[in-house]
Amino acid sequence: MDMKRLEQQITFLMEMDKLKKIVRRTLLLDESRCETDAEHSWHIALAAILLAEHMDADGMDMGKALKMILVHDIVEIDAGDTFAYDAAGNTTKEEREKLAAGRLFGFLPADQGQELRALWEEFEEGCSAEARLARLVDTFMPVLHNYATEGRQWKAHGVTRDQVNHRVRTVEKGSAALGDYIQALLDSAVQKGFLFSGDEQ
Amino acid sequence: MDMKRLEQQITFLMEMDKLKKIVRRTLLLDESRCETDAEHSWHIALAAILLAEHMDADGMDMGKALKMILVHDIVEIDAGDTFAYDAAGNTTKEEREKLAAGRLFGFLPADQGQELRALWEEFEEGCSAEARLARLVDTFMPVLHNYATEGRQWKAHGVTRDQVNHRVRTVEKGSAALGDYIQALLDSAVQKGFLFSGDEQ
Repeated sequence: MDMKRLEQQITFLMEMDKLKKIVRRTLLLDESRCETDAEHSWHIALAAILLAEHMDADGMDMGKALKMILVHDIVEIDAGDTFAYDAAGNTTKEEREKLAAGRLFGFLPADQGQELRALWEEFEEGCSAEARLARLVDTFMPVLHNYATEGRQWKAHGVTRDQVNHRVRTVEKGSAALGDYIQALLDSAVQKGFLFSGDEQ
Repeated sequence: MDMKRLEQQITFLMEMDKLKKIVRRTLLLDESRCETDAEHSWHIALAAILLAEHMDADGMDMGKALKMILVHDIVEIDAGDTFAYDAAGNTTKEEREKLAAGRLFGFLPADQGQELRALWEEFEEGCSAEARLARLVDTFMPVLHNYATEGRQWKAHGVTRDQVNHRVRTVEKGSAALGDYIQALLDSAVQKGFLFSGDEQ
């Protein structure tokens, strides 16, 4: 047993506890509170297992996709959760998250830190089959939550259909069929008044 | 796209949101509140990725282990979290959890429900390499949390070293080296007054 490695792993795992303190803008379905980043990461990992079959991709490595999802938000421990529809916050997001990645993955033994950091970077790039699945569920689940809670968070933040359309390109990029499903859901959301069409004065 | 399958998957995923409402007895490290089952599941999945190298086992399938961990606690949506040291609660745990498994995995398309239910059963049996890893981290992390929070939850619930010793057999069963690490941590916990030795009057 290499005690130094174990101590590094434990230090990292203890630091990770802080992801339970990062609160997102997505409501729980009972609307009692917003979910935490740790809860979101668990939920979309489960979604990835179930929805992978709808992907327009062959040769998915599910173990790799799950690892990627489990670490995809950890930089938010330092950088905070940047709301998908916060234009100003998103201009500085990349820089803040790179700094965070350096600090956080740096707690680990070098080989493990490099592996997980590379997975996070692959997620950010969004090109591989696993990254496309991870990004798909990362968008798909919040849209489902927003729809099921009658758009309470969309309305609270003045989000329009155009903004959501831009966002859900990650779904379409992974699965044309799930992309169609989401577009039908957004049509319904506008019709029911859960989401601003953007054509309002 | 098989719309019926997708609707079943989404129904299941929406039901899973309730795991964010199941509160465990393990404190966050900042002691502000206890963690939820969803947060715990995410955290121990990350621990499994990092600590698998210490296992006394060959041929670990990490993708399978992660899937198992992600679903290992979902039955608690119906059955509730049974505190590890609640003797009365643990006598009825198995029956309550089996009922829950029938209802919850039953939301899914049959093939996916069967796959995930089989993983949950394999976790409960605890024999395969993946189940031993899952059970190891499921015990290892709460012990770390209890130690780091000076045994606040152990003391609040009158937990003794003997009870924890019984519990941490799952760590020893997976990794002799991590078992030794945990025993040293428990020695220190008793010495520092975080955990009752059980020899007190």
